[in-house]
Amino acid sequence: MADKADKYVFGFEEADPADRDLLGGKGSGLARMMEMGLAVPHGFVITTAACRYFLEEGRMPPGFWSEVKSALAKIENQTGRSLGGVAGPPLLLSARSGARFSMPGMMDTVLNLGANQAVVSELARWSGDQRFAWDAYRRLLQTYGEVVLGANRDDFEHVMTSLRERRNVTEDSRLPTSDLVAAVRQFRMLLAAQDSEVPVDPMEQLRKAIVSVFESWNSPRAYTYRRLHDIPHHLGTACNIQMMVFGNLGVDSGTGVYFTRDPATGQHEMFGDYLPNAQGEDVVAGIRQTLPISVLADTHPEIHAELEAVGSSLEDAYSDMCDIEFTIEKGKLWILQTRVGKRSAAAAVRAAVEMVEEGLIDRQTALMRVEPGQLEQLLVHGIAEDKSPPPAFFGLDASPGAAMGKAVFDVRRAVEMAGEGTPVILVRWETTPDDIEGLFASEGILTSHGGKTSHAAVVARAMGTPAVTGAAEISIDAEQGHFTAPGGLRVREGETIAIDGTTGRVFIGEVELVEPSPPAELEMLLGWADEMRRLGVWANADTGKDAARAAELGAQGIGLARTEHMFMGDRLPVVRRIIMDEKPEKALLELQQLQAEDFIALLEAMDGKPVVVRLLDPPLHEFLPDRWDLRDQYDQLRAAGEPTAEVERTIEVVRSWEETNPMLGLRGVRLGIIRPSLYRVQIRAALQAIRRRVEEGGDPRLEIMVPLVADPAEMERVRDMLAEERAAYEVDREVKLGNMVEIPRAALMAGDLARISEFFSFGTNDLTQTTFGLSRDDAEVRFLNTYLADGVLSHNPFQSLDETGVGRLVEWATAEGKAVRPDLSVGLCGEHGGDPASIDFCHRVGLDYVSMSPPRIPGARLAAAQAAIRNGDIPLPRT
Amino acid sequence: MADKADKYVFGFEEADPADRDLLGGKGSGLARMMEMGLAVPHGFVITTAACRYFLEEGRMPPGFWSEVKSALAKIENQTGRSLGGVAGPPLLLSARSGARFSMPGMMDTVLNLGANQAVVSELARWSGDQRFAWDAYRRLLQTYGEVVLGANRDDFEHVMTSLRERRNVTEDSRLPTSDLVAAVRQFRMLLAAQDSEVPVDPMEQLRKAIVSVFESWNSPRAYTYRRLHDIPHHLGTACNIQMMVFGNLGVDSGTGVYFTRDPATGQHEMFGDYLPNAQGEDVVAGIRQTLPISVLADTHPEIHAELEAVGSSLEDAYSDMCDIEFTIEKGKLWILQTRVGKRSAAAAVRAAVEMVEEGLIDRQTALMRVEPGQLEQLLVHGIAEDKSPPPAFFGLDASPGAAMGKAVFDVRRAVEMAGEGTPVILVRWETTPDDIEGLFASEGILTSHGGKTSHAAVVARAMGTPAVTGAAEISIDAEQGHFTAPGGLRVREGETIAIDGTTGRVFIGEVELVEPSPPAELEMLLGWADEMRRLGVWANADTGKDAARAAELGAQGIGLARTEHMFMGDRLPVVRRIIMDEKPEKALLELQQLQAEDFIALLEAMDGKPVVVRLLDPPLHEFLPDRWDLRDQYDQLRAAGEPTAEVERTIEVVRSWEETNPMLGLRGVRLGIIRPSLYRVQIRAALQAIRRRVEEGGDPRLEIMVPLVADPAEMERVRDMLAEERAAYEVDREVKLGNMVEIPRAALMAGDLARISEFFSFGTNDLTQTTFGLSRDDAEVRFLNTYLADGVLSHNPFQSLDETGVGRLVEWATAEGKAVRPDLSVGLCGEHGGDPASIDFCHRVGLDYVSMSPPRIPGARLAAAQAAIRNGDIPLPRT
Repeated sequence: MADKADKYVFGFEEADPADRDLLGGKGSGLARMMEMGLAVPHGFVITTAACRYFLEEGRMPPGFWSEVKSALAKIENQTGRSLGGVAGPPLLLSARSGARFSMPGMMDTVLNLGANQAVVSELARWSGDQRFAWDAYRRLLQTYGEVVLGANRDDFEHVMTSLRERRNVTEDSRLPTSDLVAAVRQFRMLLAAQDSEVPVDPMEQLRKAIVSVFESWNSPRAYTYRRLHDIPHHLGTACNIQMMVFGNLGVDSGTGVYFTRDPATGQHEMFGDYLPNAQGEDVVAGIRQTLPISVLADTHPEIHAELEAVGSSLEDAYSDMCDIEFTIEKGKLWILQTRVGKRSAAAAVRAAVEMVEEGLIDRQTALMRVEPGQLEQLLVHGIAEDKSPPPAFFGLDASPGAAMGKAVFDVRRAVEMAGEGTPVILVRWETTPDDIEGLFASEGILTSHGGKTSHAAVVARAMGTPAVTGAAEISIDAEQGHFTAPGGLRVREGETIAIDGTTGRVFIGEVELVEPSPPAELEMLLGWADEMRRLGVWANADTGKDAARAAELGAQGIGLARTEHMFMGDRLPVVRRIIMDEKPEKALLELQQLQAEDFIALLEAMDGKPVVVRLLDPPLHEFLPDRWDLRDQYDQLRAAGEPTAEVERTIEVVRSWEETNPMLGLRGVRLGIIRPSLYRVQIRAALQAIRRRVEEGGDPRLEIMVPLVADPAEMERVRDMLAEERAAYEVDREVKLGNMVEIPRAALMAGDLARISEFFSFGTNDLTQTTFGLSRDDAEVRFLNTYLADGVLSHNPFQSLDETGVGRLVEWATAEGKAVRPDLSVGLCGEHGGDPASIDFCHRVGLDYVSMSPPRIPGARLAAAQAAIRNGDIPLPRT
Repeated sequence: MADKADKYVFGFEEADPADRDLLGGKGSGLARMMEMGLAVPHGFVITTAACRYFLEEGRMPPGFWSEVKSALAKIENQTGRSLGGVAGPPLLLSARSGARFSMPGMMDTVLNLGANQAVVSELARWSGDQRFAWDAYRRLLQTYGEVVLGANRDDFEHVMTSLRERRNVTEDSRLPTSDLVAAVRQFRMLLAAQDSEVPVDPMEQLRKAIVSVFESWNSPRAYTYRRLHDIPHHLGTACNIQMMVFGNLGVDSGTGVYFTRDPATGQHEMFGDYLPNAQGEDVVAGIRQTLPISVLADTHPEIHAELEAVGSSLEDAYSDMCDIEFTIEKGKLWILQTRVGKRSAAAAVRAAVEMVEEGLIDRQTALMRVEPGQLEQLLVHGIAEDKSPPPAFFGLDASPGAAMGKAVFDVRRAVEMAGEGTPVILVRWETTPDDIEGLFASEGILTSHGGKTSHAAVVARAMGTPAVTGAAEISIDAEQGHFTAPGGLRVREGETIAIDGTTGRVFIGEVELVEPSPPAELEMLLGWADEMRRLGVWANADTGKDAARAAELGAQGIGLARTEHMFMGDRLPVVRRIIMDEKPEKALLELQQLQAEDFIALLEAMDGKPVVVRLLDPPLHEFLPDRWDLRDQYDQLRAAGEPTAEVERTIEVVRSWEETNPMLGLRGVRLGIIRPSLYRVQIRAALQAIRRRVEEGGDPRLEIMVPLVADPAEMERVRDMLAEERAAYEVDREVKLGNMVEIPRAALMAGDLARISEFFSFGTNDLTQTTFGLSRDDAEVRFLNTYLADGVLSHNPFQSLDETGVGRLVEWATAEGKAVRPDLSVGLCGEHGGDPASIDFCHRVGLDYVSMSPPRIPGARLAAAQAAIRNGDIPLPRT
């Protein structure tokens, strides 16, 4: 059913600015400015309802064209100008698209509608400027030809280029009138050759332009844009018809764009570009060098003052920083468009805080103004563009921050070189858990395969290490120790490269890194956030260093300390001895001492705050060498006639630990029950650390978390182990015990688990994998990316929590757990803990805290506050 | 808190038989028989409450011993006999355990309490039989020594053996009195040597015997038995004290056990053993050859008639077949014990039906009397014990039925030999999906590893092929083509072996197989079941042959036809060509024709009934060769200097399809979306088959089921595919489309899925794996068995549906699906479909049908009826 309405066309002065659905963003802005009494060129808006009708029915609604005609007559009346120039100076019009949600550059615009051979003369007479009149006509032919008639843009450009070359000038504005007359002739011939022409009748021009704007809603690029930005396809666009004003009528004319505050820093001063004697599109085209907006203060002080006043009143009206387009026509200022200005993270923070200080907005509004995901950028290194070479190629922006170092292709080399103090960038096809030591040792990570949720990406984000993944253009030869960049450039081990994980850029050679310099206002903003949020913000951190960094960034505790990371590196031989059962007692004792040191460091950094230590989670074969590598080794030894017994034995052990589906195998608490010595060692190390911290006068609040729990009986076993060891170690400090909820059955048994567990922590990475029945490692390469591209899934459930599926389990488990044990503490420590949408969900379902990697903490504090504000759920002020 | 009561001791005549919790099974039976006026030797029962008190407090409750004394005085009064023989003929007593649930032989019994040197004389005088008196004393010393004093059983046996050898006799009953006197002396010396003795005071004997019975509740074997049979550990046992009567007082005496119906066939006639001039334990010990109970009709017709009357009144009282122990003492019949008799499956069926005909019980009771799991035994081959060698070793009873064939160790050989018409038994370490062709080709399967839910066991049960798994005593050398049985016997390829999957026995050499011969009453019983059940019973069947068998057994449809089994065998090369992309179009067409034939056969066998065809489910690498085998092949070729390019290419393809966690990878509907040609071919084959069956005048009701669905968008894709193909094939028959619910998210999204799907089928195998986050292949070997043995899990969730976890998802999804689409058909087609407990659950949560392998259908029909009866939910009679 087509969208019927009584009225499809509204003059700017009669439209209601609040009606953005019908008027679109641009139309609403124009109506509003008109209402404020600003000098907006007269015009009218054709509503999105007309567009929807047209797209569904293939024709305009009945009575539509007479509405347009009377609106047009009104403009003629208001301006004293006339379309076709028959009853006064000629009226030229623009037709611009303008949808509910901004889709910059995706749809059509036609300028100078109404020009033709006869109008040119009238125009010349009115303006006293022949050149201007022909230029206007030339511009109409060019944009109309391209946009409405579908001619090739390059053909027109080619004509203009020839003319410029003949005169040996670089700008169209330097072509004489005769050349523009020639351009008009050539353009018309060019169209005629395609059996096409721009109608002479101005009304006919306007009609076709409107149709063209509506049709551009369904252009492929517009369609794609909407899909990527979640904009519904049925909305349609409005179309704004507006009197043209001209900035190219001599030195008293000009055009410009300005921001009411600096979009890079947020500083409160006019910031923008001005181009004298030019039309708007010349600014955008970037052909002529623009002047800073401040020149107007000298050349046209009264206009400058007027602009400042306009900016100020627009900021008042929008309660936000604005981006304003204007034109000066023969000394008169016209405001063409305004919208809320895009800004950098730093500017967003500074502007938000200052607007509160200026009384423009309140704190809640300020908090809602900043995008939480952007904050991470403020805390990582960047690259000084002007002091660095251009990027050599691109990958995915997998983990933010810039890093520079020597390229290495092998984990062992990475560890070695890093040990010698050389910064390295690890370059791999993709990474696996076996590479973990190398990931730890590196300043940055570059992979040619794997997406934003690949192993490398996830681990890098967790560690706060910059990473660029999926740089598909390079080809890596790890054995030979080099990679080949696009263009054939070969980069060998030891050569310097740099990556920017914030943008996905990769540089070959030295760059200059820029220290993170968050704006001074950040602390204040986050302080307000802390007052408004109800969700706690904790950190995932495995080392004392990470924990200290997390505390600095405002973490209220450690929600996840992965003890297995402590099994890597130089401890791996000890761990392997345990697995391979070679004098395991001694190795276990050694491991206990090392692990106790780890815990002491964590407890020191987070003194007085909870530190949740997760017992060993991964399957043991992750600590063993790869069977295929061993097989190669065996083949080599055999070929060389050397003894193979040792390798054969290792192969046997590795084989005996192999599993068909390791994700669903012997790991987590299962391992703790089948091989209790491992969990006991970890528990003892924890108790030892607590004892030491107490002796040192500290306030250690260690909690023990059990991974992969599916049944309360598993928790009972660990509870008994803990009780036994506590008694043996004579530790009387409280040591809370809780479990991960990371497989569906734990969520389904939440009530029973809460009888034993004092806290839950949702491990939403694994919970997503098991609830969806998909292994991230396999899925991403094989079908998840295709699913996302084809729209089978609308979101990657590993980036944003799947609320309808996984979320339901989270909600149920939280409710059932708390019903049994009202003081049950419930958190979330998966990747999702740092995702603003997921944080909003966690707030809504009543979690107590979210835990994420340290760099995401500020964003999470902000997102938690936004969740409280959005859900009308701000805690009472703390007294 | 100990269990306090007013009264702990009850005479049989005053106890309430209904109070089984306090009296235990034996005590309740004795009280009941006393109430019925049967000749039960007088006695009293000490309640389970006393036992619980004793076990918790370490002493008997206050006043306990005086209660015992007055109960004893009452017996003396009733019998005219006296303990210690001081005031009349000597009273001897038995002390027997008797718990709420039967735990045969697990706890202590002491006989002839009250005997001592002085009493022997009195006893001899009363009985006129010196030998009897000494024998009674000898027996007391032996059992008391062993049971109460903990002496070694073998030491006593050694004494008796020496005596028998000296006299050159084989039975104790042939030893003269002097030898029994010698035995008594030697027994006392034997105990004295251990600083131990049987108290002389009869009351003291009794006291210690009672304590001993109570303590035996916590003996290790009793504990283990309870764990295996789910009997709570806190219940405790009652203790029955009863006057001894003697069957060894000459030809007028004797002892026996009999069933009121034949426990093997169910025939309604007295069936049992009688031993003249003997005590009860002699029957059990099996030293003397017993006589059939029918001899009594000749030797003691009046006793025989009395016994028959007792049996009849006990059957009336219990409304069931009874197992009765009796003793004849000097011509007087005493009834010692009765219980409901254990019976074979055939007997259970026949007796149940006949009891209805006799008016003893109603149909519902009859249906509740038969164990559904037993029915499968009636439909499979057995082994004629008497015409076969004894079993050589044992494994697990993984899939019921007996089979005989040539041993083979290699899948290819199995297929080859079976192709030549030679029956084979496949012998493997364990099986994998790669072995599927071999499993199909074999009569039976024997593995040395893997449990009852291992791959071999699951597949064998699904196919109805006998299997013995986990025969850990044998060692298999597949390369050399032999296995070594216990004792070192080597069995080579081609030698005949036989397995009995019903019992786990394995035979070397020829056996005689017995055809299944279900009793004639089975049909009648199942007919009643069909009238009472509400759940439909469908079959899992992949071939026309299986479908026909299923229809015979009463299947109302095919709930699961696995199309991938049709990809095996001689079709594997075609499938591999598709995967390896070698002229796939031709191969796809070929596959379509073959698959259409499969479907036609299924539709023919199930004409007019629903046939649910599941689209391809497993990952493609299951159809490819093993990478390790290929690597070996490569090494061999290389060593031989032959070209390796071909193998290398195959290795690359195999590698490209490998996954870290194949269970959670690219399979099911994901494959159908990423490689739509496979699903299209299957859909076309289905439509082709429907068209053909319609042309042939049939009534094809094919339904299409989509595996591994996690999101409604996946179903939309398949729905569109089906619609397109239907239009192309011009099929106007209804073709229902539904989805498996086998990953948690499908259950969580059930409401949305039901908007598209017309039916759901719970795939509880995979649903259990994903909900528990465990891979059955890995879990069973690595931790599940340990979990079960240690009691971390009380049940194997792959055998019986995990109601509290997985079941919750089943319940929610059923309710939500039916809320959206009230006529949604909901079934279950996992392994659990044939499990009676799971069937009860399916009934309770409102499923429409269960689907299982054909041999389990009769059991399922019965279990479904039992579920309806148990839940008070019998449908109204069909009119």
